[in-house]
Parts: sequence; C-alpha cells; structure tokens
Amino acid sequence: MNTLDSLKENALRIFYAGLKAMDPDILIRKLFLLEDNLLKIGDRIYNLDKYKNIYIIGFGKASGFMAATLEELLMKRINAGIVNVRNGYAAPCKFIKVNAAGHPIPDEAGIKGTLEIVRLIKDVEENDLVFCLISGGGSALLELPVDGISLDDIQKITLLLLNCGARIGEVNAIRKHISLVKGGRLVNMCKAEIISLILSDVVNDTLSDIASGATSPDASTFQDCKIILMKYDLFHKIPVSIKKHIQNGLNGTVKETPKSTDKFFNRVYNIMIGNNRMALDASYKKAIELGYNASVLSSSIRGEAREVAKVFGAIAGEIHRYGDPVKRPACIIAGGETTVRVRRNGMGGRNQELVLSAATEIDGLENTVILSAGTDGIDGNTDAAGAIADGSTVMRAKRKKMNPETYLDDNNSYAFFKGLNDLIITGTTRTNVMDIMLLLVG
Amino acid sequence: MNTLDSLKENALRIFYAGLKAMDPDILIRKLFLLEDNLLKIGDRIYNLDKYKNIYIIGFGKASGFMAATLEELLMKRINAGIVNVRNGYAAPCKFIKVNAAGHPIPDEAGIKGTLEIVRLIKDVEENDLVFCLISGGGSALLELPVDGISLDDIQKITLLLLNCGARIGEVNAIRKHISLVKGGRLVNMCKAEIISLILSDVVNDTLSDIASGATSPDASTFQDCKIILMKYDLFHKIPVSIKKHIQNGLNGTVKETPKSTDKFFNRVYNIMIGNNRMALDASYKKAIELGYNASVLSSSIRGEAREVAKVFGAIAGEIHRYGDPVKRPACIIAGGETTVRVRRNGMGGRNQELVLSAATEIDGLENTVILSAGTDGIDGNTDAAGAIADGSTVMRAKRKKMNPETYLDDNNSYAFFKGLNDLIITGTTRTNVMDIMLLLVG
Repeated sequence: MNTLDSLKENALRIFYAGLKAMDPDILIRKLFLLEDNLLKIGDRIYNLDKYKNIYIIGFGKASGFMAATLEELLMKRINAGIVNVRNGYAAPCKFIKVNAAGHPIPDEAGIKGTLEIVRLIKDVEENDLVFCLISGGGSALLELPVDGISLDDIQKITLLLLNCGARIGEVNAIRKHISLVKGGRLVNMCKAEIISLILSDVVNDTLSDIASGATSPDASTFQDCKIILMKYDLFHKIPVSIKKHIQNGLNGTVKETPKSTDKFFNRVYNIMIGNNRMALDASYKKAIELGYNASVLSSSIRGEAREVAKVFGAIAGEIHRYGDPVKRPACIIAGGETTVRVRRNGMGGRNQELVLSAATEIDGLENTVILSAGTDGIDGNTDAAGAIADGSTVMRAKRKKMNPETYLDDNNSYAFFKGLNDLIITGTTRTNVMDIMLLLVG
Repeated sequence: MNTLDSLKENALRIFYAGLKAMDPDILIRKLFLLEDNLLKIGDRIYNLDKYKNIYIIGFGKASGFMAATLEELLMKRINAGIVNVRNGYAAPCKFIKVNAAGHPIPDEAGIKGTLEIVRLIKDVEENDLVFCLISGGGSALLELPVDGISLDDIQKITLLLLNCGARIGEVNAIRKHISLVKGGRLVNMCKAEIISLILSDVVNDTLSDIASGATSPDASTFQDCKIILMKYDLFHKIPVSIKKHIQNGLNGTVKETPKSTDKFFNRVYNIMIGNNRMALDASYKKAIELGYNASVLSSSIRGEAREVAKVFGAIAGEIHRYGDPVKRPACIIAGGETTVRVRRNGMGGRNQELVLSAATEIDGLENTVILSAGTDGIDGNTDAAGAIADGSTVMRAKRKKMNPETYLDDNNSYAFFKGLNDLIITGTTRTNVMDIMLLLVG
C-alpha cells in the first residue's frame, strides 16, 4: 500500500473512531447507574419505585437506538413508549413503538407520530416518569403545526429556511413559533417529571437548539422571527398562513413560546449524553494511537462550507512549508456544522462541498488528505456521509474530464466524488453529533 | 488597567512586532553583505566593479523605503533611479526619483512614472546592473496598457476585478495580458542583469503574483483570461477594447506573455526579502515574550472575510470550553489575505469586515480579543489598517444603536469601528506583507 492510500485509510479510521464513540448504546450504558430500583444519572438519583408508570417518548435520528438501549436497561418497568425516527433509522425495539417519518422535510407520518406522542404525554399523571430521548433531526420528526398552518406550508417554509444559509438557531426560532410542540411546549403538556437524554447535534450544545428545544425554554420571539425572515429575504416568500400567524404573534393575539421563567420547566432534567467534542476526543485518541501529531482545532466550526475549506487548505500549506500549527505527520481534527448557500440544484451536502472546495486548495500537495463527513451518515440530499480528497484529486478529476469548479458552482459535489470513488458511505450510523473534519499531512 | 484593556494592548503589541520586523530597511541590511565592492546576496556574489552603471527601478508600496536603504548602502555607485510608489508612501531618497501615484486603481501619474522606468531600462547596457525593488501594490503602480486600451479602460476593469471576489492570481492573469510591462516583459526590455528584491504580499509567495510578476515568467494564458472573466461573469461588462484585445490573443494575433522557457529570464535574480510568515514569526516571538501560549495557524489564510471570521470564532469558543488548540492565555496567530465580495458601497476593508463578523461570533465571551490589520496600513477604501474587537463589542455597539449585522450587510465596517473607537490606524507602515490576524483569549 502506498503512503497516500494508507493516509486515506488512517483518515477513515480516525473518523470511524469518533463515530463509534458516539453510539448511544455505549453512551447511555456509561451514564446509567441502576442498582435495584435506584437510578443514578448525572448529578441526580431517581428512585424508580416512586413512580407509578414509566413512559418513553423520543424523536430524532438516533432516538430509536436510544430507546432500544433503554428497553434493555429498564425492561418491564416501561409501560409504553413511542419514538419518531427518520426513515431508515428504525431500531429493534420490543414494546416501544418506532414510527419512521420524513426528514429533513416533515411529512404526514411525522405528524401522525407526533399526535401519538402528544396523546401519550397528555395522559401521563403527576406520579409518572417520562424519559424523553432527543437527538438531532427532531425538529423535522416532532411536528404539529398551529391551527391554520398546513403540512404543505410547513414543508415549504422548511425548504426555504434550510436553503437560505440561516443558522440553526435562526431556523429554529421560526420553527418554534409556528408549532404546537416545539420550544418547550411538550413540557407544558405533561404533568409528570421528565428526564431528557439529549444527543447534541448543534454548535455549543445549546439545548434550545437541539430538535428545536422540545424540553427547553425558548429565548426567541415573534419579533426575532420577523427580523430573521427579513434578513434572508424570505418574508414575502413564505406561505400566507405562516406570515399571518407571525403577524398575529407580533400583535400579541397569539401566545409566545414558553420562556425560562415558566415554572413547568422545573419538572425537566435535561442531560446531554454525547456531543461533537466527545466524538473529536475519540478521533484524537485514535490519531495519537496511529502516530500522528494531532490537534483539535474546534468542535464548533461554522460558516459557508466552501470558504471554511480554504482555511483547511491554508493550514495544510503551512504544515508543509513551516510545520505549523503541528509538525508532520499531522492530523488536524475539527467538528461542527458548516452551511451551504444553495446556488444550483445538484446533488451534494455541506461535507462533500467542503471537501470539494478543499481539494482545489490542496491541489498538488503530496501526502495531504482532507475528509469531512456527517456522523449521522447523511450529507445533504445524498446517501453519502461525506467525502475524502487528497492532493491528487483535482488531477484525477481532470483526467476524467471533470472540472472541480463547475461541480462546485452547481452544488454537485456528490457526482464529483462518486465519479472518483471517493464518497464516504456509512449507511445508518446510530448517532448524530454534527460533522467530523480531518486534515492529515503524512 | 483591567484585563480586557491589557489584552487589547497586548494584541496591538503583537501586531506591531510583526509589522516592525518587516521594515525593508532592517530586511535589506540583514540581506546585504557588502565588502569593498563585493556584494554577497542570497546565494550569489556580485562584483560591483564589473558593472559600468548601476540603476535602481522599483514599484510598490514599500519600494520607496527599499530605495532609500539601497541609496545608503550603495551610495555614489548608483547612477540613476526611479521608483513608483503609492501616494503618501514617498520616502526620503536623495538621487533616486520617487514618483507618487494612485493605488489600487492606476492613474495618470503611475503611467507617467512607468514610462520613465521603461525609458531608463531600455537605455541600460549589457555591462550595467539593475536593482529592481518590488513590493505589493506594484500591479497598480507599474502600468502601461497595450495599444488601443486607455487608462480609463484599465481603471474600469481594475475596479471590476478587485470587487468580484477573484483571487489575486486570477486578477493578475488579466492584468498581465493587457499590459506592456507586467508579467516579465520588463526583463525582456532590459539588456543588463537584474537583481530583484521582492517583498511578498501574496499567499504562498508566488513570485509571478507579486506586483503582477514584473520580473517573473507568467504561466497564465489568454485562454485563462477568458475562463476567469466568464467565471466572475465579467466578460460582457469589461470595456470593449479589452474584450477585443483578449479575443485577438485567443486568435493568436497578439503575443502571449513571457514564459519560463524565455531565455532572457536568465538575466534576473529574484530574491524574496520578506513575507507574511516572517512577520508572523516576529509576532509569535512577542506573544511568547508576553506570556501567551502561542500558535501560528497559517500564513496563507484566504477565503471570504466574514466566513473566515467564523472559524476564528469557533476556535475562540474551543479555547474557552476545552483549552484547544492551545490553553489560556492563548494567542492564535495567522496571516494571509481574505477577500470581500462587495455587496453595498459602505466604507471598509477585508480586515475590518473580518473583525466585525468575528465580533458577532465571540459576542459575550469574556477576555477574548480579535484583531486583523493590513501590514501596509491600508484596509480597503479606508485610512485604517484594520480593527480590534472583543466579547463586549456587540454590546457596546448596540448601546450606541449600531446593529453589527446591518453594518456587515452594507460592507460598512469602517463606520462601525470608528463609532466604537476600535479602528487600528497606523499611517504609512513602510512595508506590505499582507495581513496579520490575532485571536487572544486571556
């Protein structure tokens, strides 16, 4: 095996080490200390004998897998449960109902599952206990629009929001203000204590942003919604029903989302079980094990994917020329979630686009590899998690008459890397903690 | 003095340390080993007695200061000289003529000075020696358009190229193909040996990009020019005379730029006397001296300023939360040159825009400072070199009813930082090695 091939293989091993460490089964078993009926979790102890019934609800890409572990740990103590997961992310649960639905655009199945969750949670009593299993993707998978807004309207605005380059906090501010279940409203419906196990898929692990903060107070307002829609020039493009609802919110004729001052939040214990940084730590450990001088740059990388790629390119050049920020063999580890302003309707995603842009930046650099992939196994509108490139990628592409810049212009990174056989296809990953980005200089 | 103030002061000291180290007077004196009439420079030795006449030509922001040092070192051995410098960058030369002209848009004075340089260089003989003093800004300051293209046309295309977001290599490809003097043509005019002292202001120190490669071969072609103009959607916006000239180039009716196979390049010794990395090394030394855990990220940072800023923001957050990539007190040092896609006609520049965008990213982070400034003392269309911001910048701005996002949308970063008294104004700096970017977490 030549050096470049082994470098690429090492990059994949370092990526998979991060991925594996964030398997919710491993994370939940590490977190739960269950002796007799005493559950120690985080800094709290719950005596499960105290509760009449225990219910499980959940929503998000990894929630089915979280539910399967909880079933094994709590066994017959669970009275009922339902989780909404993404199509293709179903988990082998025995008595918890796993309802598969559409993502990132909500669909009929998601709404149906959400109605079941709402029915369940409205029925629980004060002396019951609810485990809420939250992971990224929950914004699409837990959805029930306010009266007057149709599923079709929700689908339209979701598409607009996801493609305008807005930050997740901005997207979620809108989502929360047109929903009956997001932004902490679920807690208000429920009389029992709630333990939320949260797998973070957002920068800085802001709880109110994960799955649109289903069990967290919301700091955003209708006023913010208007500002955000104006900022991205969407106010006059969104469905009339949504515009009207936001205007009603501005007039004060419909209620604001739950705020941190609302007392019902005392019933919730939100606990983060995994995040991007924990994945990067596992990747770091693997990189060290493989003999690299490794450095974690940041677990909260954000910004336009193709521009962020240029910074990775600049670091690659510096390692080659000056041995900074770390000496060869170097492994720069980063994570987070970049954005893509969609220009044309090619196939691709933020990870593949980042790698495509980076490929042009590291063109000609020997023993240099860049990898970016989503830990949820899905990048953009494709079946790939991401892609991998090296200093010879552009040359190989040109041999196949593929011009990288054209593919970048067309947001068509998937076709580019498919053509080079450099897609990373993981299938269902069982987890979702944003993306892992690696730069290796051997 | 509170911690934040001293942090900001340290950032300024670290910036100025980099700036000072790149003073051409210091650099040239370090480089020149002159004993009797033997000049040792780089890996070559020149016996100055061998040459009948010694001439100095130059162009670029720092070229006047380079000429002043050369005058002192070579004294009466210099027979004549002329350098084209930017208005306001005149240096105290005794017999070398310093001709001030417009930059970044070429003007009448620049063309007049270039004509004098061309006249001088065409007159030198084989047994003469020419020192050519090149620094950034030379693309605007050395200009003589090909027949049929007016100064007005040059001004129009320069403005278009500088505002379209193209890389410097792309901008220069066009410039070289419509000029009588750029891209190595100067060497072809000259019968004598040339020693070019070059202060690099481009990423990776690509000689053919500095001052449009006046004494270096050009790898770009008329075909590249067309591709670049199409890429940035400029082909139908440029003056007709230029379009016609490029079409003639494509037809083969006008000649290509000089290539590396041209033998007359044997007459030139191109030597780089300073660059961004050398500035960063001096900044690094100062940061260590001040007690910071310092790290050089890259001296070739590129990309859209407001997006690159997000990566700095992400690193700031990581230092706070996890002590990576370096522990506090941390100083991340970077350099290079970002780009700005001009959206509105506010006052600002890439450094100020980077800092403005970063300010919104580090909003609320305590003891966090970001600085970005051009070593030439000029950022964009302003009299500031750059700006400095911290975690309280956004709050201070909002108190003054200034919304950072509005200023960013309007490319109006200068007014923003002027309002906060956070501009960095250096005046004439005597040097030009791109930008220095600093992130300090105290």
